[in-house]
Amino acid sequence: MHYATSLALLTDLYQLTMASGYWKLGRSEQEAVFHLFFREPPFSGGYAVAAGLGPAVDFLKSFRFDASDVEYLTTLTGNDGGPLFDGGFLDYLSELRLTCDVDAMPEGTVAFAQQPLVRVRGPILQCQILETALLNIINFQTLISTKAARISGATGGEPVLEFGLRRAQGIDGGLAASRAAYIGGCAATSNVLAGKQYGIPVKGTHAHSWVMSFDDETKAFDRYAEAMPNNCVFLVDTYDTLEGVRKAVEAGKRLRERGYEMIGIRLDSGDLAYLSIEARKLLDNGGFPDATIVASNDLDENIIQSLKGQGARIAVWGVGTKLATAYDQPALGGVYKLGAIKSGEGEWEPKLKLSEQAVKTSIPGVLQVRRFENEKGLVGDMIYDETRGIDQRSVIVDAGDANRRKQIPPDATGTNLLVPVMRAGEVVVPFTEESKDKIDDTRARTQRELGRLHPAVKRLMNPHEHPVGLDIGLHEIRDQMIREVRWDFGD
Amino acid sequence: MHYATSLALLTDLYQLTMASGYWKLGRSEQEAVFHLFFREPPFSGGYAVAAGLGPAVDFLKSFRFDASDVEYLTTLTGNDGGPLFDGGFLDYLSELRLTCDVDAMPEGTVAFAQQPLVRVRGPILQCQILETALLNIINFQTLISTKAARISGATGGEPVLEFGLRRAQGIDGGLAASRAAYIGGCAATSNVLAGKQYGIPVKGTHAHSWVMSFDDETKAFDRYAEAMPNNCVFLVDTYDTLEGVRKAVEAGKRLRERGYEMIGIRLDSGDLAYLSIEARKLLDNGGFPDATIVASNDLDENIIQSLKGQGARIAVWGVGTKLATAYDQPALGGVYKLGAIKSGEGEWEPKLKLSEQAVKTSIPGVLQVRRFENEKGLVGDMIYDETRGIDQRSVIVDAGDANRRKQIPPDATGTNLLVPVMRAGEVVVPFTEESKDKIDDTRARTQRELGRLHPAVKRLMNPHEHPVGLDIGLHEIRDQMIREVRWDFGD
Repeated sequence: MHYATSLALLTDLYQLTMASGYWKLGRSEQEAVFHLFFREPPFSGGYAVAAGLGPAVDFLKSFRFDASDVEYLTTLTGNDGGPLFDGGFLDYLSELRLTCDVDAMPEGTVAFAQQPLVRVRGPILQCQILETALLNIINFQTLISTKAARISGATGGEPVLEFGLRRAQGIDGGLAASRAAYIGGCAATSNVLAGKQYGIPVKGTHAHSWVMSFDDETKAFDRYAEAMPNNCVFLVDTYDTLEGVRKAVEAGKRLRERGYEMIGIRLDSGDLAYLSIEARKLLDNGGFPDATIVASNDLDENIIQSLKGQGARIAVWGVGTKLATAYDQPALGGVYKLGAIKSGEGEWEPKLKLSEQAVKTSIPGVLQVRRFENEKGLVGDMIYDETRGIDQRSVIVDAGDANRRKQIPPDATGTNLLVPVMRAGEVVVPFTEESKDKIDDTRARTQRELGRLHPAVKRLMNPHEHPVGLDIGLHEIRDQMIREVRWDFGD
Repeated sequence: MHYATSLALLTDLYQLTMASGYWKLGRSEQEAVFHLFFREPPFSGGYAVAAGLGPAVDFLKSFRFDASDVEYLTTLTGNDGGPLFDGGFLDYLSELRLTCDVDAMPEGTVAFAQQPLVRVRGPILQCQILETALLNIINFQTLISTKAARISGATGGEPVLEFGLRRAQGIDGGLAASRAAYIGGCAATSNVLAGKQYGIPVKGTHAHSWVMSFDDETKAFDRYAEAMPNNCVFLVDTYDTLEGVRKAVEAGKRLRERGYEMIGIRLDSGDLAYLSIEARKLLDNGGFPDATIVASNDLDENIIQSLKGQGARIAVWGVGTKLATAYDQPALGGVYKLGAIKSGEGEWEPKLKLSEQAVKTSIPGVLQVRRFENEKGLVGDMIYDETRGIDQRSVIVDAGDANRRKQIPPDATGTNLLVPVMRAGEVVVPFTEESKDKIDDTRARTQRELGRLHPAVKRLMNPHEHPVGLDIGLHEIRDQMIREVRWDFGD
C-alpha cells in the first residue's frame, strides 16, 4: 500500500526515547544485531509461512523522517513540562539515512519457532527504530499466510477464495490480508484493490441484496445473466436454498441457449453438507454436471475438514473473517530481540535476555538458520552464530530442552535461510510489496516448501515437530551465559 | 490515514458486478436505502461504542474511480475469456460522483444490536459500491473502541495505555486501533504516528534491549536518566524484578539530586499482583510514594479485573495485543442490508431478507433509532421507519422475540441517534479522521454516554440487556412480510 505520508513515526515512542538516549551517550553508531522471530507457530500448528518481506522492504526503502515528523516530535514534553527531545537529536533524525544490513527469509519460506525471520545488523539506534514497524508488518502477514496455508491444506487443493475485507482490521488490514492469503495458498480474493495493487486474481458475482432488489428470484437470476453472462455464479439461499438451486438451473438453461455457460451456484447459509449434496444432484440432473458449487459462511480449516468428512460436494471454498483476521489467533507473537553488540574492540559480544522459562530466554549471537536435507527429505534446521560458525560435532539442541538433540547426518546438505535484503542501507533484492510478476513466484515457493514438509508436520492438530535446534556450540555458550547471569543476580 | 492511491476499489468484486448489472438494466439511479448494523454486541457484552465515522467520511469525500482504477477493471475477464465489464459501464464509473445521503451515529455513541450505525440512501448502485469499505472501517473501529471501553471500565478510571502496534493487523490496523482505542477510553498510545495524525497523547520510555545493551542494570537506568531525565519510567524486569525495583529507587534518588523526579517503574512479566505489591513497598520505603507502577504483559479486561481483586498496586495499565486486535473476538459481525427500494411511483417499498433465525431476518424500512429517557435515566431505544413515523401506541417489540415488549412511558423524551452526515454527496458535518481538536470531544462523548448506562449493562459477563425494539407498527409490518414471503416460497 502506498501512503501519502512518511511512515518513519510508525513506531512505539520508546524506540525514539531510547534512540535519543543512544545519541546522547554517543552510542548511536555502535553496531548491534537484532532478530525477529516467534516462539510458537500460530494456531497450535507445526509451522508458519513467512510473509511480509515485500512491504517491509518498501517501508525500509522510503524510511526517512520528514519535516512534519520532526516538527511533531518537538511538541512532545516530559514530566517537567520541558521538551522530550533535544534539538540536536531531532536534527540527527532529519539527516538520518539507513546504513544497516538486513537479512531475511524470502516470503513463502516455511519457518519454525525460534528461527530469525528477519535479522537487522547495524547502528543500534537504527536497529531500534525499525523494530515496531518490522514486527507489525511481518507478524501480521506471516500469521495470515500461515492461516491460508492451513485452510488450503484442508481443502486438499480445491480453490479457496478470500472474502474477508468487510471484517478485516482496517483498510490495510484487509489489503495485507488479501496479499498474504494469496501467498499462503488462496486462489483469489474478492478485494478489488488488492487485485489491482498486487496482481492477485479477483472473483465475485452477486449478493443477497441483488436478489432482494427484484420481485422474485428467477427474475433476479435472469437479469444478472443478461447483464453479465460470462460471470454467473448464482447465490441461491436468499429465500429457500434448494428452490433457489432449481431456479438457478432454469436460469442456466436460458443462459446456455444464449451461448454462455453458468459457472455455478453459491451457498452462504444453512447445512452446507446436506445442501451441497442435494444441490449437486439438482445440478447434475438439470444438465449442469460441470457447474461449480461455491460455499461460504464462517468457514475455517476445521469446518472445511468436517464438511469434507461429511461428503459435502463443495468445489470452491469462500473464506472470509476467519481467514482475514486469523480469528482463532489474531496475532502472531513475534518478537525482536537484541542478539549481540560490537564492543569497542570490534568484537561481537553476545547478549542474553533471561526468562523464567528456558524457551523464552533469548538466543545470543549473530544468527543464521541452516536447513538440512538429504535424499530422504528434510533432516532438521540449525540456528547458529555466523561469527563462530558451525561446531564440527554437527548436533542441534532444542532451545527449551537440552536433552532433545539430533545429529545432522553427514550426507545432509544445508542451505542458509536468511538471504541478504539490504546492505549498508541499500536494498539488494527485487522484493517489494507490489512486484506483481513476483507474487505468483512467491506463492509457488510456498507450495514447494509445504510440499517438502512431512504431512505429520502439517497436521492441523497436534502436529509432529520438525527438528529445530541450536548448533551445539551456540547451545553451550548460551548455557554458560545463563548460568553467569543467574549467578550475578542471585537467582 | 492518507493513502497515495484512490480507495474506490476497496470493495468486493461483486459490488462492481452488481453495479454493472444495475447500470445495464437502467436501474443505477433507482433509490434504495441500506443499513449497517451488528446483531450482537462484541465480547458477549451489553453494548458497543460506535467509531470509525471520521475515517469513513474521509473515504466518502475522496471517493472517485481514477484512471488507473478503470484501466485495471478493463483487464478483468469472465469465463468466456471476454471482458467482465462493458466499456460504457466503465465510462459511467469514471464520471461517477456520489449523490447519496448518509446518516450515522456520531463516534462515541453507545450502540446496541440491530440499530443502524450508518444509513446510506440514494442510487442503488452507489449504496452498493460503498458497502464493503464502510463495513471495513466501521466494523473494526467500533470493535476496538468497545474493547477499550471495557478495559477502561475494568481499571475503574485508572489510565490505560494502548501498546498494540507491533502485533496489530497491518499498518492501518495499528493506526486505526490506536485511534479507536483512544475514543473508547484509553489515555494514550505508544504509536507515534497515531499521535501525530490524530492528536492522541503518546507515551513510552525504554525496553529490555536498552538494559541489555549495558553491562549492568544500574548503569542502564542511570544512563537513561541522564539522557531523558523528564521521562523516567524504569523497566525493572530484565533480570530479577524486585532487584530491579531496588536499583530503580537508587537511580531515582540520583535523579532527584539533579532536580528531576522519576515517574515510576514498569513491570512486564511475572506475577503482577505479587510484584506490584512488593514494588509498591520498595518505592514507598525508598522515598517514592508518588512513583507510578505501570504494568503490562498480555492484559485484558478480565485479567485486570482479577489483578484488582488480588489487590495489585498497579496505577497505569499498558494493554497491547489483546486490545489492538480485540483478541478474544477479532471481528465485529456488522452487516449492511437493503431496507427499502423506491418504486416507479416514488413510494418506498420495504424489503426483507429472511433467515431461519428470527433475529437474523432483516428489518425493512427507512430506519432511524430513537433513544428515550426520562428523569430516572434511559428508558429504551426504538427502531422505527421514518417514512411511517412512530405508532401512537409507543411500544417497542424485540426483533427476535415478539413477546418481549416495552411501553415507552409518556414522560420519556426521545432523541434520534442517526444524524445527517452527507446530503446529495456533500459532507455536511465536520467529522473527519484527523480533526485533532475533535477527538477529545469524541472521547468525552463516549465517557458521557457510558456514564448514562446502568452499571449492569456494562458488566463484563452476562450483562443486563438495555431495552431495544422495533416500533410496534414496524414490527407488525415486518411480521406480515415474513408470513407473505414464507407462504410464497413454500416454507
